[in-house]
Amino acid sequence: MSEQTMSAAVVTAFGEDLEVARVSVPQPAPGQALVRLIASGMCHTDLHAAHGDWPVKPTPPFIPGHEGVGEVVAVGDGVTRVKTGDLVGNAWLWSACGECEYCETGWETLCERQSNGGYSVDGSFGQYMLVDARYCALIPEGSDPYEIAPVLCAGVTVYKGLKETEVRPGQWVVISGVGGLGHVAVQYAVAMGMRVAAVDVADDKLELAKRHGAEVVVNAFAADPAGAVQEATGGAHGVLVTAVHPDAFGQAIGMARRGGTIVFNGLPPGEFPAPIFDVVLKRLTIRGSIVGTRRDMEEALDFYARGLIHPTFSKQPLEDINAVFDEMVHGKIEGRVVIEY
Amino acid sequence: MSEQTMSAAVVTAFGEDLEVARVSVPQPAPGQALVRLIASGMCHTDLHAAHGDWPVKPTPPFIPGHEGVGEVVAVGDGVTRVKTGDLVGNAWLWSACGECEYCETGWETLCERQSNGGYSVDGSFGQYMLVDARYCALIPEGSDPYEIAPVLCAGVTVYKGLKETEVRPGQWVVISGVGGLGHVAVQYAVAMGMRVAAVDVADDKLELAKRHGAEVVVNAFAADPAGAVQEATGGAHGVLVTAVHPDAFGQAIGMARRGGTIVFNGLPPGEFPAPIFDVVLKRLTIRGSIVGTRRDMEEALDFYARGLIHPTFSKQPLEDINAVFDEMVHGKIEGRVVIEY
Amino acid sequence: MSEQTMSAAVVTAFGEDLEVARVSVPQPAPGQALVRLIASGMCHTDLHAAHGDWPVKPTPPFIPGHEGVGEVVAVGDGVTRVKTGDLVGNAWLWSACGECEYCETGWETLCERQSNGGYSVDGSFGQYMLVDARYCALIPEGSDPYEIAPVLCAGVTVYKGLKETEVRPGQWVVISGVGGLGHVAVQYAVAMGMRVAAVDVADDKLELAKRHGAEVVVNAFAADPAGAVQEATGGAHGVLVTAVHPDAFGQAIGMARRGGTIVFNGLPPGEFPAPIFDVVLKRLTIRGSIVGTRRDMEEALDFYARGLIHPTFSKQPLEDINAVFDEMVHGKIEGRVVIEY
Amino acid sequence: MSEQTMSAAVVTAFGEDLEVARVSVPQPAPGQALVRLIASGMCHTDLHAAHGDWPVKPTPPFIPGHEGVGEVVAVGDGVTRVKTGDLVGNAWLWSACGECEYCETGWETLCERQSNGGYSVDGSFGQYMLVDARYCALIPEGSDPYEIAPVLCAGVTVYKGLKETEVRPGQWVVISGVGGLGHVAVQYAVAMGMRVAAVDVADDKLELAKRHGAEVVVNAFAADPAGAVQEATGGAHGVLVTAVHPDAFGQAIGMARRGGTIVFNGLPPGEFPAPIFDVVLKRLTIRGSIVGTRRDMEEALDFYARGLIHPTFSKQPLEDINAVFDEMVHGKIEGRVVIEY
Repeated sequence: MSEQTMSAAVVTAFGEDLEVARVSVPQPAPGQALVRLIASGMCHTDLHAAHGDWPVKPTPPFIPGHEGVGEVVAVGDGVTRVKTGDLVGNAWLWSACGECEYCETGWETLCERQSNGGYSVDGSFGQYMLVDARYCALIPEGSDPYEIAPVLCAGVTVYKGLKETEVRPGQWVVISGVGGLGHVAVQYAVAMGMRVAAVDVADDKLELAKRHGAEVVVNAFAADPAGAVQEATGGAHGVLVTAVHPDAFGQAIGMARRGGTIVFNGLPPGEFPAPIFDVVLKRLTIRGSIVGTRRDMEEALDFYARGLIHPTFSKQPLEDINAVFDEMVHGKIEGRVVIEY
Repeated sequence: MSEQTMSAAVVTAFGEDLEVARVSVPQPAPGQALVRLIASGMCHTDLHAAHGDWPVKPTPPFIPGHEGVGEVVAVGDGVTRVKTGDLVGNAWLWSACGECEYCETGWETLCERQSNGGYSVDGSFGQYMLVDARYCALIPEGSDPYEIAPVLCAGVTVYKGLKETEVRPGQWVVISGVGGLGHVAVQYAVAMGMRVAAVDVADDKLELAKRHGAEVVVNAFAADPAGAVQEATGGAHGVLVTAVHPDAFGQAIGMARRGGTIVFNGLPPGEFPAPIFDVVLKRLTIRGSIVGTRRDMEEALDFYARGLIHPTFSKQPLEDINAVFDEMVHGKIEGRVVIEY
Repeated sequence: MSEQTMSAAVVTAFGEDLEVARVSVPQPAPGQALVRLIASGMCHTDLHAAHGDWPVKPTPPFIPGHEGVGEVVAVGDGVTRVKTGDLVGNAWLWSACGECEYCETGWETLCERQSNGGYSVDGSFGQYMLVDARYCALIPEGSDPYEIAPVLCAGVTVYKGLKETEVRPGQWVVISGVGGLGHVAVQYAVAMGMRVAAVDVADDKLELAKRHGAEVVVNAFAADPAGAVQEATGGAHGVLVTAVHPDAFGQAIGMARRGGTIVFNGLPPGEFPAPIFDVVLKRLTIRGSIVGTRRDMEEALDFYARGLIHPTFSKQPLEDINAVFDEMVHGKIEGRVVIEY
Repeated sequence: MSEQTMSAAVVTAFGEDLEVARVSVPQPAPGQALVRLIASGMCHTDLHAAHGDWPVKPTPPFIPGHEGVGEVVAVGDGVTRVKTGDLVGNAWLWSACGECEYCETGWETLCERQSNGGYSVDGSFGQYMLVDARYCALIPEGSDPYEIAPVLCAGVTVYKGLKETEVRPGQWVVISGVGGLGHVAVQYAVAMGMRVAAVDVADDKLELAKRHGAEVVVNAFAADPAGAVQEATGGAHGVLVTAVHPDAFGQAIGMARRGGTIVFNGLPPGEFPAPIFDVVLKRLTIRGSIVGTRRDMEEALDFYARGLIHPTFSKQPLEDINAVFDEMVHGKIEGRVVIEY
């Protein structure tokens, strides 16, 4: 591997356009691997990173991106899990400490010393990236690198979220919001044997949900979406909220059956007014869920590898990244945009 | 059993004083038992019933009370579970359908056809009451009827709530609010092997919590009660909220460890602003819990029978019921008031 | 309903042929319904009943059969759950007490006071039968009575057994034995999102398993069936043993992945030699599972109603029942025989 | 740290006496720490190691011992979790890969690439030992090094085993065998809020169990120990088998309540005849359990640190190790022998 510099999209200041510039190709430290990118999905989180929206901020200049797929071209000392030529992916959970109570118990996503891809360490919006060889995703043989890229964040996030609903095969789950996350969630839910009701405000999204196996679709602009779900399903055993509009949260509560679980998968700003009386009387469970562990990732990728998951995506060159972010802000993106290197 | 009439405290109109009057002694229908009351705890729910505070209201005239302990004096046709001379109790879950998905799966507290003691059927604020022989509580031999009365609602409610926190022995639970529910919750948590942090605004309540085994006590009027709990415990694995002040709900979220569970046991009016970002990032679980099933009841009573639970209580005659309600409204009651018949 | 007598297959003495005779049509007691049979599956348990094989025996004369489907033609006092004209089924779990710790916690199949259809109460091998209206199965609209009959025992048994393996969607389950139970188990497992490996000694059974979605099939007569499963799956997360040959039990242990669960669904006589070292070192879980609760039944029937389950069956008249039992003894039955009335 | 050699008990050939010899003090590789021993418990597993009893054998010469407590005197490169002066312990789970499906999901005890202290790597029967800094046990401040040593294997093993019984506070657990493991198990079970029935063949062991809080004790030499447990408890919700006599296994099945769980904690040779009919009909769960994870260890040590666990032990010098093994073979040891350095 002889290249010294590469193109990358760099955040130089929060809220500014990313700068597509030549930067140094990084070198793998012990335990790391260098990856030549083939594809990288673009996620709302990248937008939040570039805007510095969240309380704990990354430090510019940095390269966002945590749905990157590429080929290992060099490995650091002590790496045994991957080798040159392997296809791997980075992820939001770039690494974790391996020693804390969360890492020890299968909850590395809660590790307080975790690194995050494209946030606290440089990500996949460049021609090369580093991964932690213990934590990177192993891309199953035969995968389409562009189609699988969105599985690395959108896929694992909804897959984990669905597990967290505790809905069993044969029971009803509502997928609230059929966007970049939600249209993948419908597919996972169906593959997991759940019965799916999809809720969105756009009829074409609901059509997409139907094609992926949703039995019930409800337009949330219609009067009383919660009532419509209750009538069609008898109350959902679980609700996965991928929508970020505040109204979606309250409606989700109303869609659940007694004893049901509502999982929030998105990170909208602000607070959500939970109706205490209903939550207590109906014994509802409200739970947050964020990305997934390495194990969740391997499972999510395996569903893809078995041909059960097909994210909607379109390819764009790295140069157009600012235009894509602009479309993302205005909600104009269908499924996922994947950068082609 | 030859008495035809009895004294009872009757709600004749919402918001009015109860009328202590002579009414007919009821007759047990098939499957029911007639019980001569010895003791009956008084619960905030009785106050809500008498005031018609909740969306689904009881129908005056009715007799409140769902912590009644007494002796079976007659049984209706087909009763085999209890017999004359047995000590039994009524409960909020007076009966359930036995056939719905909730009844079939150990969640009869969610049955949509349940009857509620002292609410949809007459309760224990009289010299006699009826119970459904399949659903009444069986009072363990050797119990003090006055001391066990509060277990029938306060006890089973917090016991179930603690189970719903999913806190394991050796882990930390916060009991938020050390009143009628909370001081019993501290005792159950200790008996269940949990480590207890108690939070209240009154130092004498915190002293009581300590005597019952709380290792950490925090006065919520002090600056940053959530921070104090975090520092003392490293973050609680579970939080049981028995307090009804809205501030308690937000603080409870802040007291939990990543991955922790916050259970709401009270029924304050209104909504609770849940901070979505924290709930998602920390993978918190927020859950409502109301009373308990017959099985929860039997378990809760068994802890009492083994000498592990001692509710604080004082006895009052039925005639003083309106004065007691008045004290309840003004938060002047220590532990539980139990009516002595 | 004016008929006074009916044809029924009666066990008059253990080990003798059943007598197809005219007997009185029973009358529904309070809480019961009288059902005119349309179809009834035949189960190995009926054979054990007729032979008096098990420690606790039924009392001749009695009518076996616990996979009966028919129409309600009369109801006893107090029945609300079913009405004349409804299609219902009987089941092995004919009724339970509703009051014990098992009934209260969703484990009515463990109730020590349960009645069993075609065993401790008369069953479905006659033109009419009684059911307990609280416990009978409600046949979903649009069902084929003959095809759904085997779901009432074989279906619910394997469905519950699969739940008890705790295998999650996307994980591997082995179905050991592809007979009357096993060929239905393959279908449930696939519908529940599991990956299926099927094991049998007959290639035509393995072909059937493939048609129903098994990804891996292993002939247990081949050398080292456990090794073959390990190689193909990396070790199964769960194993459901429907086979009754003693060898199947030991092989099942060897097919499991570390941490896996082996569920025994059949009731062969004798003991099973569990290799303690392996069970401890690999942290294996071995569990028994028998039939299912009303809730399991409703779920199992719902999978059928959604078109996901198609038991193989052939129809026979009641008169031929002894011939069918004879075929059953000699292992000549394909799928299930269903009596047509 | 200037010493070059140390005394250690070395297995030079299976089945021979250990040789107490001068050997080189090992040097910590990256990620390791060197520990000067203070105390080391002696476990039956050490005996099995020295005898080469198990299928996968260690390679002589090697130093057994996996209940060692000592002070860190040097650390290798990259160690951050411990520092010079810290008290740490080794354990049977000396290290694991951190990357496999078991390590990722909180089941590192099932890791197929684990190292075992005193077995595949040298252990604590010498004046110094190495530990993997990521996996060693952190000894809580204020611990008695001699008393806590047995917690490192006996303690964590029974603590984990008790968790695996899934017995909840207030339910019954049987501790079968009140020896080195069992007398500690009684203490953990009591601290976890369980009700304890203890079974052994020696009355002094049963007396010890009583002193530690067992409510019921049964001498297994008496007629029908299973019946005695059933009568006293109504059937145990869980049974922890620490005894290694084959009879104990069959009796354990008979002690369980319907739906109960029997956990095997020991590793006797041979097979255990499981009565299939009972296991299926009563829906019993039989499970193996071996040692515990780092998290189980930290929890087990925390119970000790809180003053709830007091293993019975006696101190012996390293020189007497062969005599102690001899006593162990003949079952003459009370509680645990701890080597004092």
